[in-house]
Amino acid sequence: MVEPRIIRIAEVEVDPNQIVAYKALLAEVGAASIALEPGVLALHSVSLKHMPHHVRVFEVYADSAAYEAHIQTPHFLRYKHGSADMVTALRLVDVDPILLSAKLGPC
Amino acid sequence: MVEPRIIRIAEVEVDPNQIVAYKALLAEVGAASIALEPGVLALHSVSLKHMPHHVRVFEVYADSAAYEAHIQTPHFLRYKHGSADMVTALRLVDVDPILLSAKLGPC
Repeated sequence: MVEPRIIRIAEVEVDPNQIVAYKALLAEVGAASIALEPGVLALHSVSLKHMPHHVRVFEVYADSAAYEAHIQTPHFLRYKHGSADMVTALRLVDVDPILLSAKLGPC
Repeated sequence: MVEPRIIRIAEVEVDPNQIVAYKALLAEVGAASIALEPGVLALHSVSLKHMPHHVRVFEVYADSAAYEAHIQTPHFLRYKHGSADMVTALRLVDVDPILLSAKLGPC
């Protein structure tokens, strides 16, 4: 049996005075993770229009091993340490897929 | 200037007694929209593990015209009418992209 994908929505509240720097860190770790980690299938980061310091990240990993490897990578640790003083609240919401569908294939 | 993509997270609460039928409707409209509508770039539907009747849909449209066309399609109207009695709460959260990145290309 194939282990299911790990899918999660991270709900992040950021110090409004540091949101620009936080977004740069988040974009950097997202791009590096997709480019360098075969098991990181999608990382979609957005900010709420009506509360721009509230961020959501839609995360898809191939399996739990891919996720465990991801959080040990230099680029993730750089993000985690670099953003530690920027993040004021973090909620990790585990989800089950109903349908993941996109123009360039499922992700 | 190119009009920006329309990106949104739909937060849907569903009658727990109808969640199975709702998920089938949602998967059907998602697959049809990606297959038939060039301007629907991504529709990722998930349910919360700890509250399975709470659904999130991560939606990406090429522009506002693509979104306006989407909500007039037969498959969307079939979903909207078919799910009207299943949805107990709906919140549409407009978001701005930080980075959309996935293995098979941005979506």
